[in-house]
Amino acid sequence: MGKERGGRKDDRRVNETWVPIPEGSGFGLQNLPYGVFAPAGAEPRVGVRIGDHVLDLAAAFADQPEIDNDVFARPSLNAFMATGPAAWTSVRTRIVELLTDSAHRDALGSALHPLDEVTLHLPIEVADYVDFYASEHHATNVGRIFRPDATPLLPNWKHLPVGYHGRSGTVVVSDTPVVRPSGQRKAPSDDTPSFGPSAKLDVEVEVGFVVGVPSTLGTPLTTADFAGHVFGACLVNDWSARDIQAWEYVPLGPFLGKSFATSISPWIVPLQALQDARTPVPPQDPEPMGYLTEHEAWNLDLDLALELNGDVVARPQYREMYWSPAQMLAHMTVNGASVRTGDLYASGTVSGPEKQQRGSLLELTWNGAEHLTLADGSTRAFLQDGDQVRITATAPGADGSRIDFGDVTGRVVRA
Amino acid sequence: MGKERGGRKDDRRVNETWVPIPEGSGFGLQNLPYGVFAPAGAEPRVGVRIGDHVLDLAAAFADQPEIDNDVFARPSLNAFMATGPAAWTSVRTRIVELLTDSAHRDALGSALHPLDEVTLHLPIEVADYVDFYASEHHATNVGRIFRPDATPLLPNWKHLPVGYHGRSGTVVVSDTPVVRPSGQRKAPSDDTPSFGPSAKLDVEVEVGFVVGVPSTLGTPLTTADFAGHVFGACLVNDWSARDIQAWEYVPLGPFLGKSFATSISPWIVPLQALQDARTPVPPQDPEPMGYLTEHEAWNLDLDLALELNGDVVARPQYREMYWSPAQMLAHMTVNGASVRTGDLYASGTVSGPEKQQRGSLLELTWNGAEHLTLADGSTRAFLQDGDQVRITATAPGADGSRIDFGDVTGRVVRA
Repeated sequence: MGKERGGRKDDRRVNETWVPIPEGSGFGLQNLPYGVFAPAGAEPRVGVRIGDHVLDLAAAFADQPEIDNDVFARPSLNAFMATGPAAWTSVRTRIVELLTDSAHRDALGSALHPLDEVTLHLPIEVADYVDFYASEHHATNVGRIFRPDATPLLPNWKHLPVGYHGRSGTVVVSDTPVVRPSGQRKAPSDDTPSFGPSAKLDVEVEVGFVVGVPSTLGTPLTTADFAGHVFGACLVNDWSARDIQAWEYVPLGPFLGKSFATSISPWIVPLQALQDARTPVPPQDPEPMGYLTEHEAWNLDLDLALELNGDVVARPQYREMYWSPAQMLAHMTVNGASVRTGDLYASGTVSGPEKQQRGSLLELTWNGAEHLTLADGSTRAFLQDGDQVRITATAPGADGSRIDFGDVTGRVVRA
Repeated sequence: MGKERGGRKDDRRVNETWVPIPEGSGFGLQNLPYGVFAPAGAEPRVGVRIGDHVLDLAAAFADQPEIDNDVFARPSLNAFMATGPAAWTSVRTRIVELLTDSAHRDALGSALHPLDEVTLHLPIEVADYVDFYASEHHATNVGRIFRPDATPLLPNWKHLPVGYHGRSGTVVVSDTPVVRPSGQRKAPSDDTPSFGPSAKLDVEVEVGFVVGVPSTLGTPLTTADFAGHVFGACLVNDWSARDIQAWEYVPLGPFLGKSFATSISPWIVPLQALQDARTPVPPQDPEPMGYLTEHEAWNLDLDLALELNGDVVARPQYREMYWSPAQMLAHMTVNGASVRTGDLYASGTVSGPEKQQRGSLLELTWNGAEHLTLADGSTRAFLQDGDQVRITATAPGADGSRIDFGDVTGRVVRA
């Protein structure tokens, strides 16, 4: 596993493509994330990002009989993701060939669109959405905030990756405005609940994993099945209304405090681009049960950043997550539950041990007891109307390159 | 609202159809539930049940230009459900015309299939699945069992319909075998969790509501929107592994204890068939917040039954549910969350005040402290491998008729 984090030691491969790549871009040939885009006035279709361009794959493969072109002329990645790892590799190999051999430049010209001339769409048709809670630092912080007199981690936390189902129908693509949710809230000091817009609107910096290959009902997957079923990763902002959540969540978990919106980045980075980012999970004590044993390293060395109105307010690091996405997959199916193409499961808030590594305002302001001061001098406990949130991430890529996840953004709209 | 429960006071309408209807059938012209079926060797398509036959709607409407025939030649009800209440009414009216005028008998002969010659499929493509917790008797029983020293109902329960998201991808049609799930369990007396097949496999008798018409993200629905968006109702068995659930569910709610399977009946009874079953919610104290006010009665007067290996072990009554399905819909969207065609939301376990009205083994055996004795002399605390579970329901229909929901069945298969 590559541990050469930070700068690129060798730009040679990046420069092998005939597509102009901006200096410092994390969208070189080693990345090639997939998304769904629409040229002006045209229908959404599948594309792959290279530099600041997107290649229309249905058009690029129109006369390539060895590639199933039909899976790309669609408004989601699902049909392509369902083709499985061998097909994913063939397509990726062929894309690299097309983008490196300048003989293709003229033929592909009309299939290559400048990014600023297209609209990006939700890249996947979300089947089931599950949200985990896999950061020990986050779970510990939340425990300290809400149960200050008790052990921060609940008894089950180190035995299994705690998770729950979220609302698939309100997963939206980056840049979709988020209307501040209204609902019932009751502070501990109130006698009765009141109704109104959430006064504690928050973000959660997360990483999402997208299933390509379905499994069979009644047959669990193992951690070793991860790369055979999971297609890639993206960024997730799990918007959270803390006041609504605090009142509703016993005994069946979060519901309306989360279900108003979950934003994801438009680019799905394939696992094939993340081979140099793979890293083992931290030491797990107690040793997980057999079905959770991590035989191959599938934690990821991602540097995340949370921006609020352009200021970086946190830099969470994914590599410190306690449970890996392969362990989450094995746990999610150990009871026989099947996965489907388009299933999205997210890591839960990514928080590190340092204060500036916390991936939610809840933790950064300790539930509003402290405040963040932004560059314009204003302060925040939770989000204000008009606030613009942005989450980014990079990972080490092959040949010393850098893999950019792009971003997931959203602006808060008044209720 | 019709309150003539029980026997039919007037069989005239039932006998108006030229299709032979068995004596006592609850599938007369007043019911006409929709489902998806496949004749031998043919593709699944939409049908309507009449007596012990199913009418192939794409075939029946093949030469009816006023009906959009294309929505029926599909493997789910979703396209038809999306057409909305005016179209639902037109189709229902036209079906009644076809089935009452014997001039159509010869032309429709090949579109009418005996039920025992077809295969029934999952009737809807499930978008999001939400499970509520709307029976006061059930929530009180669960509180008494798990928190014997505290107030049975948690503080939020009478202020809002508590609910959570379940797994859409493992919603299966009646008669699908259910493999006993394995997972982590830890009894309070154990020091550490153990792994194995659930020793407390249970059922939950529920009623499900299916959304036809989608709503807009950011715009809540009201209780008055219920009949404009919800297409119909079905039976739900929310299989539950109590031991897995008890260990995993803090703080984010049930996950693997539920997600291995949720069974639904193959027939969706349209709301139009349930007009005589409508009944107000019981007195609600405290008065619900404005957005939960029930302007029209949408609780339902359903008599349910739970059978275990052919013995009726409980007879829950839906009309005693505390929160109506219209209140659930308003609550589910009050934060701006949208609904989609195919969304399924279930009531939660239906339990009444009497012991024989409890809709789960957890309650019937008080978490195994007592046992049920079946007709063959065997006893049960929870389900054994090979056990066959069946849930049925009937409601008062128009003209003194009886509306039969059919059944949802499932056999437990060894892990």
